[in-house]
Amino acid sequence: MGGDSAPEEILKGAKLAIDEYPINIILTGPKETIQNHLDRLNISSDQLSIEDAPDIISMNDSPSSSYRAKKNSSIRVGLELVKAGRADGFISAGNTGAVMTASLLTFGRIKQIERPAIATTLPSQTGQFIMTDLGSNVDCKPSHLVQFAIMGHFFAQIHLNVNDPKVALLNIGEEPEKGNQLTQSTYPLLKEAPINFTGNIEGKEVLKGVADVVVCDGFTGNSLLKFGEGVSEVFFNFFKKEAKRSLISLLGLLLLKGALKKFRRRYDHAEYGGALLLGVKGVSVIAHGSSCQTAIKNAIHTAIEGVEGKIIEKIEHAFES
Amino acid sequence: MGGDSAPEEILKGAKLAIDEYPINIILTGPKETIQNHLDRLNISSDQLSIEDAPDIISMNDSPSSSYRAKKNSSIRVGLELVKAGRADGFISAGNTGAVMTASLLTFGRIKQIERPAIATTLPSQTGQFIMTDLGSNVDCKPSHLVQFAIMGHFFAQIHLNVNDPKVALLNIGEEPEKGNQLTQSTYPLLKEAPINFTGNIEGKEVLKGVADVVVCDGFTGNSLLKFGEGVSEVFFNFFKKEAKRSLISLLGLLLLKGALKKFRRRYDHAEYGGALLLGVKGVSVIAHGSSCQTAIKNAIHTAIEGVEGKIIEKIEHAFES
Repeated sequence: MGGDSAPEEILKGAKLAIDEYPINIILTGPKETIQNHLDRLNISSDQLSIEDAPDIISMNDSPSSSYRAKKNSSIRVGLELVKAGRADGFISAGNTGAVMTASLLTFGRIKQIERPAIATTLPSQTGQFIMTDLGSNVDCKPSHLVQFAIMGHFFAQIHLNVNDPKVALLNIGEEPEKGNQLTQSTYPLLKEAPINFTGNIEGKEVLKGVADVVVCDGFTGNSLLKFGEGVSEVFFNFFKKEAKRSLISLLGLLLLKGALKKFRRRYDHAEYGGALLLGVKGVSVIAHGSSCQTAIKNAIHTAIEGVEGKIIEKIEHAFES
Repeated sequence: MGGDSAPEEILKGAKLAIDEYPINIILTGPKETIQNHLDRLNISSDQLSIEDAPDIISMNDSPSSSYRAKKNSSIRVGLELVKAGRADGFISAGNTGAVMTASLLTFGRIKQIERPAIATTLPSQTGQFIMTDLGSNVDCKPSHLVQFAIMGHFFAQIHLNVNDPKVALLNIGEEPEKGNQLTQSTYPLLKEAPINFTGNIEGKEVLKGVADVVVCDGFTGNSLLKFGEGVSEVFFNFFKKEAKRSLISLLGLLLLKGALKKFRRRYDHAEYGGALLLGVKGVSVIAHGSSCQTAIKNAIHTAIEGVEGKIIEKIEHAFES
């Protein structure tokens, strides 16, 4: 039920996913509402079932109080299915804070992980990379960033299919001594960590694809991501306006239509598989609130990869030893 | 002597400035070298003079030790001219850290300003806005951000010509309680400050032009700005590549040439006047290391505005009372 276009786009995305992957999907939400939408969309399949979850969490509800007060929300019911072993992973396009909090409270933290982190795949000029944290933790200690780096390492192995992911620390200079207190203290710890730490990376280099995992505190990560969205908007708005002003620009844009489509396919967040919540004892994927059906399908794929790649077990194992 | 294209672009920029503004410029650097370049470029004017400064600060020199060891660097000699009253403001495209440190050590801090901040004008979709801090202070306390906000207020009054600039706090959510410890504690202080504080602003909104001044800690500001440069590069590289691959895309880009030029003119940092160091007792402008002549001319203009707008006096006065 979560997301700007729920339940329609969610249901269409689920349909795309069962058509493509050998999985079963349990839809959580008010049973009748969902069934009505499925009927209207003409979707029916043995691979789909509904688990009734009549409570609704709105964008204004506080994450922790809604968890306690709304025991039958689609988020909590879904997470409980995973916890009970009736499902392998959970996906939601709902209120990010609510999904994060509910995942943490339902699954619990992996031992020795102090704070969970949000990690997502982003497009680079040469391929893809993982960025973490994107807002789960806005005040970080060096030990948090080290844990994010190690979890990001496993996510990259599974999701980007690289054996020894290059992990870099987002900083405002390349030299080890550059940065704020947090990055300065984190640098030497990352050098000692059992990962392929390649040093600091500046914001300008992030999209060049030189690192497979970029680690930062959640305040910086979230700000950067949103600023990037803002910069893209500036580009598209500018050229749209120009096309209205000048026939030549309009013609130019029309000729670039193919390239623009390619650009969007490459850089649009819909093509990427949502964000994985790292550090909790269960697979939980948070899709963008504005997710269309493709974005939902890809978020489901991220969950499949997390389950099949045994990301939880790998992180648990890394921190046991 | 500072910057990637010094001294040539600096000298050309100085020439543009004296042609446009009724000012005198003192060029600091190795006298003979500068005179040779002026001769070669065929630049001579009563408004130009040279002050010998034979020491060279490289990008690898540490800011504080170079200040002490290289008393006759172009940076230090220039700042000393301002301090002695022989010049009104200083402009450099050299090593940012060196200019910042030398400005602070030469001019001293304005009373009650705990830390100087770097502020620059950036293009928004509707006009321009000021962003501060951009890297002078990477670990900030709430009081620092309040001081940045007040200094940014005066910079906006002078540079953007707005009477009551709208000042916003960069944050990862709009609500007062959102953010990290720093922004959460800063919010109520800004509400009490003698400025038009309009609340939190998210990264995605920054470029929309809803605020005249955006305040943040230097780590976030610097990261954002560099990430923005990276995002632009992605756009231009993508379409350049497409134009090589497809004749239709190439034709489209050619037709968009006028719009692209306009875009660059609007969003290129060369068009903006460098960064003003706020909080020191003298006007010091830091231009981008890759500044071309236009960027240098515009940085000189920023210094003129700072001097004529009496920015130092205004900040001093605001913190006296």
